[in-house]
Amino acid sequence: MSCIVIIGAGMMGSAMSMPARDREHEVRIVGTPLDRDIIVHAQETGRHLSMNRALPEGVLFCQFSEAESALAGVDLVICGVSSFGVDWFAREAVPLIPDGVPVLMVTKGLLNHPDGSLEAFPHYLARMTGRSHSFCAVGGPCTSYELADRQHSSVVFCGEDERALRLFRDALRTDYYHVSLSDDVTGVECVAAMKNAYALAVSLAVGLHEKEHGRDAAQAYNPQAALFGQSVREIRRMLKLVGGRDENIVYGAGDLYVTVFGGRTRRLGTLLGRGLSISEALGQLEGITLESAVIAGRTVSALKALAKRGRTVTGEFPLLMHVGDLLEGNRTEGIPWSAFETVERPE
Amino acid sequence: MSCIVIIGAGMMGSAMSMPARDREHEVRIVGTPLDRDIIVHAQETGRHLSMNRALPEGVLFCQFSEAESALAGVDLVICGVSSFGVDWFAREAVPLIPDGVPVLMVTKGLLNHPDGSLEAFPHYLARMTGRSHSFCAVGGPCTSYELADRQHSSVVFCGEDERALRLFRDALRTDYYHVSLSDDVTGVECVAAMKNAYALAVSLAVGLHEKEHGRDAAQAYNPQAALFGQSVREIRRMLKLVGGRDENIVYGAGDLYVTVFGGRTRRLGTLLGRGLSISEALGQLEGITLESAVIAGRTVSALKALAKRGRTVTGEFPLLMHVGDLLEGNRTEGIPWSAFETVERPE
Repeated sequence: MSCIVIIGAGMMGSAMSMPARDREHEVRIVGTPLDRDIIVHAQETGRHLSMNRALPEGVLFCQFSEAESALAGVDLVICGVSSFGVDWFAREAVPLIPDGVPVLMVTKGLLNHPDGSLEAFPHYLARMTGRSHSFCAVGGPCTSYELADRQHSSVVFCGEDERALRLFRDALRTDYYHVSLSDDVTGVECVAAMKNAYALAVSLAVGLHEKEHGRDAAQAYNPQAALFGQSVREIRRMLKLVGGRDENIVYGAGDLYVTVFGGRTRRLGTLLGRGLSISEALGQLEGITLESAVIAGRTVSALKALAKRGRTVTGEFPLLMHVGDLLEGNRTEGIPWSAFETVERPE
Repeated sequence: MSCIVIIGAGMMGSAMSMPARDREHEVRIVGTPLDRDIIVHAQETGRHLSMNRALPEGVLFCQFSEAESALAGVDLVICGVSSFGVDWFAREAVPLIPDGVPVLMVTKGLLNHPDGSLEAFPHYLARMTGRSHSFCAVGGPCTSYELADRQHSSVVFCGEDERALRLFRDALRTDYYHVSLSDDVTGVECVAAMKNAYALAVSLAVGLHEKEHGRDAAQAYNPQAALFGQSVREIRRMLKLVGGRDENIVYGAGDLYVTVFGGRTRRLGTLLGRGLSISEALGQLEGITLESAVIAGRTVSALKALAKRGRTVTGEFPLLMHVGDLLEGNRTEGIPWSAFETVERPE
């Protein structure tokens, strides 16, 4: 039995307490200053405020002011902050973590630097805070709600320190939480970074079909499958571009699948597919969906930055560029179907 | 304008008349001896009997007895027979096709030879009938119903004769039928051959969830995505095994997507996932679903044959082997989730 401290009481961070407690570890969830209400609610009711689910028995909930005592005797730390909170985590939380304790981030994706370079969060944290911790991250298709419901989920823990990866896997795998390991941090995070933009892209076909055939018409899957395939094609190109290994398309395809069906991004993509502008679409959706639009937008910005540095031709990413136009409210000619046609020969 | 003759009046063969007529070609559909009723019905009503849709204006429908005259002046032939009819097509139809006329097959997949070798249908036909025709094939995600409805569909024409591929693409691409080209026949057909078995596998999660949480429970997508990702992993392994290029996973993922959602295979997988035996499941479904079970079963037989020849370790295909057990009515321990866990390192 280990002592696992989860810093950040968002939905995914909190959901990680499910396999952790099922493995009978001592689990403490420390909220960020933004999680104050979530922690108070959990202390009073044992439930998660925004996920609206009971959290496991025996979890200790603390405000960030109590972080230092909560981290006493910790064996493993899980970073549960969103990509918006990583700088805060580096500045405020990491200094409180005892030396050498490995950190597993549920934070997904790549950081876009102003100079157009991309950096995986584990690399960023290691660089910002020094290498006294092994920073690992979780990739693969897993929504927090379903993890909290103990649905079968196949994830991948990535990091350069295989010892740390195995510690986390040995501590957290259960009969429903299935864990692969990978040393390709950039590749795993690259596919995770792409999923929102491309899930939005696939969902465009849903809205387009509703617009043309009415909302009650049976769905059409050829167009969705065409956009799904094109998404896989462009994600493979992006993997090559950032130096990630091609095998990560396994996680990319699964992640795309779960985001198309399990996520909020689909609602945004469907509205855009119906022909609404981005502002009209976001007007119809509650603020929480804004995050997926922002994350999708980052992928487009990253590509444009790479293009500026001459690392890529945006013409190789016609679907992503189309999503970018929609998010930026530009006029478009519609989905650029013919730009997806290729002629494949031996390389 | 060209003269296009479609031999085989099944759903996909007949649906190909839609882009062909939209491009204003002269189109003749010649039924096989099994299509007699379809042809009579089409001649009388202009509709397709089993697809239950109107076929385009101006298509000439002929019984196979009229094939010779129907083939007079033909520029391009489309082979619309199912994988069960390929030997008939080689024996009875090919000899009637004027020399040098290229043939595009809608027949998908790989032929399993008794010795465990696999052969793509275009290669098989070329070998059986001599090289006086260029045999090409259609891959990629495209259901016949939705093609007949002019839904956007992205397909790939594969073959070794790029001139023939370009003739078919130039003749058939429309603003809804989008065509890529590939010279990797084995790769394109390999992913097509895998899709039924793996679509069945992904659907197991649907039935399993219904069994555990009731048919009215909201679907869970983590388990489906986990099986989708594992399917992509095993399809990539199969591509490597048969010498197909990795890029074909783009068509494999799209094909899997459309087969999970647009196909009949999902119903069979869902029933098996609920815990029904293969005989109980087929008993609940009409015979037409039997075909997808047979096609899925072929993939398993192919793998076992490859294993016998020492070409593969079946342990690398745990999900496919599980599907095989279900199709053969063997007792199983359930989905072998932990066998999907991998440790990825540089090759």
